[in-house]
Amino acid sequence: MSFLGDKYLISTEIGFAIFEKIKDLPIIDPHNHADVKEIADNQNYSDVWQLFAATDHYVWEMMRKRGVPEDYITGERTPKEKWLKLASVFPEFAGNPVYEWVHLDLRRYLNIRITLGPDTGLDIWRKANKSLAEASRRPRQLLDKIGVEVMCSTDDPIDMLEEHEAINKDAGRKLIRPTWRPDKAMKIANPGWRKYMKQVAKRFKSELNDIDELIAAMQDSHDYFAGCGCVASDHGVEVPLSGDADKKAADAAFKKAMDGKKLNPAEIEDFMSYFLGEVAEMNAEKNWVCQIHMGAVRDIRDRLFNTIGPDSGGDVASPNLEYLDPLKKFLNRFDDRLKVILYCLDASHQHLLATVARAFGNKVSLGSAWWLNDTPIGMRRQLEYIGSVDLLYNFAGMVSDSRKLLSYGSRFEMFRRVLSDVLGDMVTRGQMPYQVAEKLAVRVSYESPKELFGF
Amino acid sequence: MSFLGDKYLISTEIGFAIFEKIKDLPIIDPHNHADVKEIADNQNYSDVWQLFAATDHYVWEMMRKRGVPEDYITGERTPKEKWLKLASVFPEFAGNPVYEWVHLDLRRYLNIRITLGPDTGLDIWRKANKSLAEASRRPRQLLDKIGVEVMCSTDDPIDMLEEHEAINKDAGRKLIRPTWRPDKAMKIANPGWRKYMKQVAKRFKSELNDIDELIAAMQDSHDYFAGCGCVASDHGVEVPLSGDADKKAADAAFKKAMDGKKLNPAEIEDFMSYFLGEVAEMNAEKNWVCQIHMGAVRDIRDRLFNTIGPDSGGDVASPNLEYLDPLKKFLNRFDDRLKVILYCLDASHQHLLATVARAFGNKVSLGSAWWLNDTPIGMRRQLEYIGSVDLLYNFAGMVSDSRKLLSYGSRFEMFRRVLSDVLGDMVTRGQMPYQVAEKLAVRVSYESPKELFGF
Amino acid sequence: MSFLGDKYLISTEIGFAIFEKIKDLPIIDPHNHADVKEIADNQNYSDVWQLFAATDHYVWEMMRKRGVPEDYITGERTPKEKWLKLASVFPEFAGNPVYEWVHLDLRRYLNIRITLGPDTGLDIWRKANKSLAEASRRPRQLLDKIGVEVMCSTDDPIDMLEEHEAINKDAGRKLIRPTWRPDKAMKIANPGWRKYMKQVAKRFKSELNDIDELIAAMQDSHDYFAGCGCVASDHGVEVPLSGDADKKAADAAFKKAMDGKKLNPAEIEDFMSYFLGEVAEMNAEKNWVCQIHMGAVRDIRDRLFNTIGPDSGGDVASPNLEYLDPLKKFLNRFDDRLKVILYCLDASHQHLLATVARAFGNKVSLGSAWWLNDTPIGMRRQLEYIGSVDLLYNFAGMVSDSRKLLSYGSRFEMFRRVLSDVLGDMVTRGQMPYQVAEKLAVRVSYESPKELFGF
Repeated sequence: MSFLGDKYLISTEIGFAIFEKIKDLPIIDPHNHADVKEIADNQNYSDVWQLFAATDHYVWEMMRKRGVPEDYITGERTPKEKWLKLASVFPEFAGNPVYEWVHLDLRRYLNIRITLGPDTGLDIWRKANKSLAEASRRPRQLLDKIGVEVMCSTDDPIDMLEEHEAINKDAGRKLIRPTWRPDKAMKIANPGWRKYMKQVAKRFKSELNDIDELIAAMQDSHDYFAGCGCVASDHGVEVPLSGDADKKAADAAFKKAMDGKKLNPAEIEDFMSYFLGEVAEMNAEKNWVCQIHMGAVRDIRDRLFNTIGPDSGGDVASPNLEYLDPLKKFLNRFDDRLKVILYCLDASHQHLLATVARAFGNKVSLGSAWWLNDTPIGMRRQLEYIGSVDLLYNFAGMVSDSRKLLSYGSRFEMFRRVLSDVLGDMVTRGQMPYQVAEKLAVRVSYESPKELFGF
Repeated sequence: MSFLGDKYLISTEIGFAIFEKIKDLPIIDPHNHADVKEIADNQNYSDVWQLFAATDHYVWEMMRKRGVPEDYITGERTPKEKWLKLASVFPEFAGNPVYEWVHLDLRRYLNIRITLGPDTGLDIWRKANKSLAEASRRPRQLLDKIGVEVMCSTDDPIDMLEEHEAINKDAGRKLIRPTWRPDKAMKIANPGWRKYMKQVAKRFKSELNDIDELIAAMQDSHDYFAGCGCVASDHGVEVPLSGDADKKAADAAFKKAMDGKKLNPAEIEDFMSYFLGEVAEMNAEKNWVCQIHMGAVRDIRDRLFNTIGPDSGGDVASPNLEYLDPLKKFLNRFDDRLKVILYCLDASHQHLLATVARAFGNKVSLGSAWWLNDTPIGMRRQLEYIGSVDLLYNFAGMVSDSRKLLSYGSRFEMFRRVLSDVLGDMVTRGQMPYQVAEKLAVRVSYESPKELFGF
Repeated sequence: MSFLGDKYLISTEIGFAIFEKIKDLPIIDPHNHADVKEIADNQNYSDVWQLFAATDHYVWEMMRKRGVPEDYITGERTPKEKWLKLASVFPEFAGNPVYEWVHLDLRRYLNIRITLGPDTGLDIWRKANKSLAEASRRPRQLLDKIGVEVMCSTDDPIDMLEEHEAINKDAGRKLIRPTWRPDKAMKIANPGWRKYMKQVAKRFKSELNDIDELIAAMQDSHDYFAGCGCVASDHGVEVPLSGDADKKAADAAFKKAMDGKKLNPAEIEDFMSYFLGEVAEMNAEKNWVCQIHMGAVRDIRDRLFNTIGPDSGGDVASPNLEYLDPLKKFLNRFDDRLKVILYCLDASHQHLLATVARAFGNKVSLGSAWWLNDTPIGMRRQLEYIGSVDLLYNFAGMVSDSRKLLSYGSRFEMFRRVLSDVLGDMVTRGQMPYQVAEKLAVRVSYESPKELFGF
């Protein structure tokens, strides 16, 4: 019953037995937002704020919630001032997973078992920084400590991926793989799109005179990524895209946007839908996994977006998005010839997506509870539900989705504990034999993602 | 803690005590898709695949999910080949209710306690087939073994229902009653509608010159069904119908469709809404129960629908359907003069329907967790919620909704265990006295449906 | 395990320890529908029906659900006849919170531990009435017994609030504060709006020639309420309002409605949205709390509404309302300068609102599980979820929202028990240290609302 003790998140003996079997399995993290350069450079972290909070908008949002001025979050204050401010409000985060993740990270990777709060902030600042100065706490060493067997970063089609190569060469194995995420090319209505197109044109030596040339450049990039060990794409969409738009309409929208003219919603849809359909074809051909992240309505708080920019907070889930029609069209187009993972943000869409994954059979999997659902209760509700409609055996497994290296450890530990607890409950209630549950736990924690992504 | 043991799905002593009181109550199954001819013929089943899987798309979907080729599911392979293929992937179904149902059926009705898997498939094939060859495992004998007091099949208005009569005559009681389901007549936009209208015309000796004549034919059918012991209608709609359409508009739509012309959505709505309103009036007059199944978006996987047809899988729940407006109109039209049961597919509509059932008082009941929610977790969530908004006392109770005879046993057992567990938790938490919970369990398991349907 | 015993709703030792710390904290009830005159008059209640059921549509709805004729609910029958009829069906309410609330109230405030049912109704009628005749059971004495430190009634802008003043003068402290609820002025499409405008004109000596004059009258009222100790407004909306409408359009709609002409939906929206924006500005200026109750679709059962009127039952939650767009606009307009509490009716919007409260930081709080969710399971699900997305530390805390004086006690007890159970579970699962949970429980139960409302 102790805070983050052995039985953390596990309520049955059987659940604990299951956890014992999976807790030390290597970590497969098929989707994160790693700072690849940080890993390649492999320098010691300057301080505990840098490693624990500087890149983590989950932490930022909780600080704002407790009234901490932005200056101490993303602003000009020193890392030490920021850390101490974080410490001063940290006990008020209790109940939110940030409270658990930070304490897990302090314990598991820095051997600091003190609880963070106003009285201990300075002490932890000193102890943590001392620890972080050791050679064993550099990024690559931490990845080993965490037990990462393979992880996938999220990368732009124009990236050259040299750092991935350097890391893997040094590691002597495919430790880090890129993920091909062409959102910047697809999101034709974004302010920076034309500028980005110029970069695409330069990178792939194309005039980009029409949509065929854009798709050809994307094909070049897709092939290049494949050569660098990429096995998956990723696509972030508020509402799914049908992938069945007319090419002529998409081409007209493309040319209009290239001319700097504003597109109407139907034109945006035409372009994006056609684009996704074409790049999904590339995935199908190479047997890549096509990951679709749905339902995040981003940057709704103007003040944050206007002063700090994207990925800083202010993102929400919405239950009122119409997923089914476009998803149906997309999945029918690629039926049984494309591996798809559906990640869903709003919990009220969980039911829909589980039934869709069931309906489309073997190649369509549910992804792990995403972002605002990546919490003990969010994961529990999802795991309870997935198996009852779809199959846990087909679940794509955990991803950290994190911008913070340490998260690969604490988030996977949280997931494995919740999974063990859910399966332990099912065995305790007589819903499956113990041996079956144990195999299922190993499958979901390790084998499934390895098989699905072909690592 | 043993698999499917005495305490299966029950976590408290009190819950178990409640279950002891209800486990042997006769089964009232007011809604299923029984193969009435199979029961009337009362021949031994040819093999275990035939009884356990050949008619059950729940099993088919899980096989597809594990990559089994269609040939081994609905295709040309022999029952033995299909069964062995099912066995080879069966452990991978763990967590899905199919895993529990099949094992329950093997144990309860064939005395086979072996766990199904690749190593045991052939052994179970032999043992089960031997068992199924016994006279005591014919359909009617199985119904007795399951403890079915009364069940309602789902029937078309043009059916003659001779088999119902034969079964009941032989049983010496009203064992099986028909349910009047006029969906084929109502679904004017379905491809086979005109052909079906010809059958209706022939059956009821009507010209079907206008909508009055169609309604008159339906009235004839309704009366005929009543004579055969029918006490309920059933209607499957993606979105509820308001039942308040204008007769002239409905008539015009009817005539246009009879002429083979394509209707627009408003015309379809006019016809269907008027039709449902009229047949609901017939129900009100005879004090029948009007069952409405809402929210299933059917046949979304083109490949399945185009090759195998409806009721083969590929059906999903959608949270983005607008229920409230039509439901409000329908329920106001029939306020307090029509018994209505609302069955809801998407779990995110559970809240809405519970509040609607509360708002409209005594005659409007919630039906059991349907189809994709007919699982331990789905039933638990529904039962927890129903009582907190509406009343468990008014709950319409369990239905098997099954196309597989054995399911009447295993599904009712699952329901009664979950109900006992939910009520056991409530007593344990001090929310009601034990005696009250025990009475409520008997009410929900047996008395409520009996009273509501008037069996 | 005993009915409503010490451990009622609490399943862990730790949860019970937490409850011991908070159970006797004074009650802060920032939102209810108190009959202020009843409290000011401080007469003994005539009978137990009057106190327990006569003003409580939660009870009425359950009686209707069990088929009790309206005559025994809101009709002409005597209180005794009504009470005995209630008793005759009361055991059938088990599972619904009404069953627990009524029994809690009998035990805690009348010392009657008999379970209500057909056999005990008359006995309880006599005992309860005898008890209610005592001086210690008058409204003000009951408020003391319940432990109410401060409560806020819900009041109309034209109210003079004399009774509030009298009560507080007599109590020697600010026991009761008004809440400014200008819904009648805002709901321009309601039948009684023009008549109400005449009352506003008279009360504030204004011609109400244009919308500026209406806003000025509202400002007068707002100032008057402030002088009477008001610190919060309250707004009931089916769908949130953006608060960003154009003044000219709003003025035109106002004048048109004042002329008795029917407005179209866009005009209604223009007026209401502008109105809410202007009154929210008054709140921002005075640092009041702006409470928004969203998602109730009211009066859907025509028969009830036409015969009894509003607030009599027939109200439902709907998941298909579009909240995000208007809410985003409203919260961006007032970002960080207005304290807002979001109360959500449909459980499927819980996710959205939790993410919105997280996105907008410190000044935006989630309100307690409202109305149809104000149940053990509804509160539990909300409390589990809030902390995982937003912070429990920022939760606005419990409100009774009740029209029945006794409810302040039983509803707060239910809430505190569920809160203790949820936090007890989290400590038991190792998610936070015990001391942190205990502080959080005190914060949520008492300190948060006190700080937020500035009592």
